[in-house]
Amino acid sequence: MIFSVYNNSMNNQDVKTTESKDLHYMHLALNQARKAMALGEVPIGCIITCDGKIIGRGYNRRNTDHSVFSHAEMSAIRKACRKLGDWRLENCTIYITLEPCQMCAGAIVQSRIDRVVIGARSPKSGCGGTVLDILSNNEFDHKCEVSQGVLESDCSSLLKEFFRELRKRNKESKASQSN
Amino acid sequence: MIFSVYNNSMNNQDVKTTESKDLHYMHLALNQARKAMALGEVPIGCIITCDGKIIGRGYNRRNTDHSVFSHAEMSAIRKACRKLGDWRLENCTIYITLEPCQMCAGAIVQSRIDRVVIGARSPKSGCGGTVLDILSNNEFDHKCEVSQGVLESDCSSLLKEFFRELRKRNKESKASQSN
Repeated sequence: MIFSVYNNSMNNQDVKTTESKDLHYMHLALNQARKAMALGEVPIGCIITCDGKIIGRGYNRRNTDHSVFSHAEMSAIRKACRKLGDWRLENCTIYITLEPCQMCAGAIVQSRIDRVVIGARSPKSGCGGTVLDILSNNEFDHKCEVSQGVLESDCSSLLKEFFRELRKRNKESKASQSN
Repeated sequence: MIFSVYNNSMNNQDVKTTESKDLHYMHLALNQARKAMALGEVPIGCIITCDGKIIGRGYNRRNTDHSVFSHAEMSAIRKACRKLGDWRLENCTIYITLEPCQMCAGAIVQSRIDRVVIGARSPKSGCGGTVLDILSNNEFDHKCEVSQGVLESDCSSLLKEFFRELRKRNKESKASQSN
């Protein structure tokens, strides 16, 4: 793994400005993404905060759980709803290492999350503005504030590393089958 | 309730043409919607079929479960994934009494459902073409075949009945509080 795991020694009192908050929680979201990577899943991680407290964490487990609902954001939203005892996550911020897909962007809007902080862009299915804009679409009842590109290089490099390793493994596996 | 509950006496062998299949399964989806209504929830119901068999049912339980994931479609997809042991629901058809929201339309595309049969249109959040087109969008990897307006009048009337009753109850409640 090319990145050192972020040390969560900085406590919430140290995290004052919006920018330092964003970096802090995106580092924690990256730690979640590494848990997905350890399972052989596409490394995507997520953190949800409310009033400066973490109320939901999640990482991609789609293949492990055989469930389309095991995307990082969905797991984190499920936990946050359970924590607050409500399907409304008003006044919450969600930190995601990769721009959300249609389903996750829809779940973020449906759960009325205020702010969405995104690491890397998703050119194939990003619905925070790249392919479609679901997060801050004027047509819907709820619109999120969106910040793109927080720790973009780290988030994107982790994904690239995963796919490089995957291609290498697939190539080795093919070679061993043909021998 | 203004509609008689559909009698499921017609078995799958009777259901031959696409049109009669659509009517049959939409009647069953309406029965699911009535379960939501009995709980005081917005009456939306859903059925998922694969190779002529029902593999998932669901009805709206969002307030009852305090969960944004308790929309009818999400519950039915969860059950269908469990049944097939896969997050891919290829060769499946989903029948929904109301055009899906952003999240549910996204979940349908993510789970690669082939065909979507819709009852009533949703002018506020319909993502089968009314507000946004997520279901058959050329930009995404997967595109669904969509049929709109199946038993539209029945699906729409059930929703209207629910909201009429809700307004009446709210009015009575306000009147009793002011006395």
